[in-house]
Amino acid sequence: MFKLTFLGTSSGVPTRHRNVTSLALQTTHNRDWWMIDCGEATQHRLQRLPLSVHDLVGICITHVHGDHSYGLPGLLASASMTGRKKPLLLIAPAAIKAWIDATLLHTELFLTYPLIHIDVDSAPVVHEEAGLTISRHALSHRAPSVGYRFALETSRWKLDKAALQAAGAPPGPAWGLLQAGQDAILDDGTLLRAATFRQTETQRATVVIGGDNDTPALLTDACAGAQLLVHEATYTEAMLQKVGPGPTHSSVQRVAQFAEAVRLPNLILTHFSARYHNADGMAELEAEARLHYSGELFLARDFDSYELDAAGVLSKLPGKSH
Amino acid sequence: MFKLTFLGTSSGVPTRHRNVTSLALQTTHNRDWWMIDCGEATQHRLQRLPLSVHDLVGICITHVHGDHSYGLPGLLASASMTGRKKPLLLIAPAAIKAWIDATLLHTELFLTYPLIHIDVDSAPVVHEEAGLTISRHALSHRAPSVGYRFALETSRWKLDKAALQAAGAPPGPAWGLLQAGQDAILDDGTLLRAATFRQTETQRATVVIGGDNDTPALLTDACAGAQLLVHEATYTEAMLQKVGPGPTHSSVQRVAQFAEAVRLPNLILTHFSARYHNADGMAELEAEARLHYSGELFLARDFDSYELDAAGVLSKLPGKSH
Repeated sequence: MFKLTFLGTSSGVPTRHRNVTSLALQTTHNRDWWMIDCGEATQHRLQRLPLSVHDLVGICITHVHGDHSYGLPGLLASASMTGRKKPLLLIAPAAIKAWIDATLLHTELFLTYPLIHIDVDSAPVVHEEAGLTISRHALSHRAPSVGYRFALETSRWKLDKAALQAAGAPPGPAWGLLQAGQDAILDDGTLLRAATFRQTETQRATVVIGGDNDTPALLTDACAGAQLLVHEATYTEAMLQKVGPGPTHSSVQRVAQFAEAVRLPNLILTHFSARYHNADGMAELEAEARLHYSGELFLARDFDSYELDAAGVLSKLPGKSH
Repeated sequence: MFKLTFLGTSSGVPTRHRNVTSLALQTTHNRDWWMIDCGEATQHRLQRLPLSVHDLVGICITHVHGDHSYGLPGLLASASMTGRKKPLLLIAPAAIKAWIDATLLHTELFLTYPLIHIDVDSAPVVHEEAGLTISRHALSHRAPSVGYRFALETSRWKLDKAALQAAGAPPGPAWGLLQAGQDAILDDGTLLRAATFRQTETQRATVVIGGDNDTPALLTDACAGAQLLVHEATYTEAMLQKVGPGPTHSSVQRVAQFAEAVRLPNLILTHFSARYHNADGMAELEAEARLHYSGELFLARDFDSYELDAAGVLSKLPGKSH
């Protein structure tokens, strides 16, 4: 249903193997994809992946901080230079729109396509299209921040194969006609009606992508019925206590306890402080998470891809991490 | 005298092996360095080099276009996050200052150090400090663009070794005293005056770094007495004719002919269109350059470093290119 690819998993500053925050979200029905946050050099990450900026439908920005937004000007400019024509949605705080307007003006950037801004504060549902509903959920951070909930519902026609077999219609051309919604007549003259043998099968999946946030419980409503939460876990609880409440980030423990409390089946942590970027650091974060969360857990790395299927099962896809 | 390290050598858009424009310029007398232009992900390039943003004295921006400036916000933010306190000079068009001000405002970026803007239009000499004079020279591009001339003059005391030997003073402690400006008395009572045996030796080197520019001859005055020109050469003359005058860039031929005409001893070409980023493309550009220029020629690659010595000799330093 969903494929997620992490373009950047570092908090604040890039390091050699982790870039600042960005995430690509694809749905399985076409090549279109969404981006959530766009730290500097996100376009450079895309060059190493089979994701084209021309298939990008929209960009959701969680909050104004540079490690989540400074890749926007370059990405927008490069899309123009490579000839994009179709509109691009920018779901973002009004300040991001003001900054992009200032960028267009002062750096003489002329876009070859319409950039359509949707103010993240305008309504709880920020985008709706066939089968996909994106809503935003207010978080707690030193700058106004939101999480995005992507709810996907896809329907497809499915033949009642058992009933067809029982009616004396084995697999064959008639099945193709019925699948396409046309009635079929068997060689013996039996009429098979599509309305009888064809049913709608609906699949649903919901993913919640948090922005910077020190209070995971603010996502309780967003996570109702969701199969996956992606959330920042900047440091351990001990480090959060040491750093103090100023940065308004979450610890691994807080996110893990929240995910356990709302019985979320899958959790991916990201946005790690540079102090944890070696193997020991990541092991420390993972150990803290497993202490408080019993579901399927991953700590994201740049270039990691995951698939969430219609049964709610999350799998890490094979492929290189850096 | 000067060390140059290319941080980005691509025109317009980054490619897998070439980033958008930026150049680091060091003088040999300390760790301080200057940056000329700052395309997106320049800070990412610095992570792979022994250049610290804390030793960066100033950034010179040639013009407002994003492929020369979109790395500024992230670089400024990261310098703050890693605790920079000392002032940073930003020699740039007023529009860049306005854009940075808008960035600070809309993305809630608070710098921990003074950012001192020097309007590139304010005066021909944009910066002067002990031994270093930076002047700007107007170019021709679709946005106002300048080249920067870095003139370095360093003086040091040098002993007249031949005269000392003739005076019966072989190498020894007396030489150290004289070098430090103190008179010395030899074992036989001979007085050696520092003023007699110590002379000032002055070394000079001048480098001109062009911005985007379709008329190299505008740098004629800047190149007077210079040993090295670094200039964009976006495509071949044939491609320039095909593309037309709209982009207002230089061809290799035009830059090479100019450098030959003003008898510049060293030329480094950069800012290549992505269409030339393979070996064949670079060979085509180099062949065109050698047809029109007989001096020391290099086509820059990302991470290439060069040293210009006091004799005006330019050498490519050993090290990895990407």
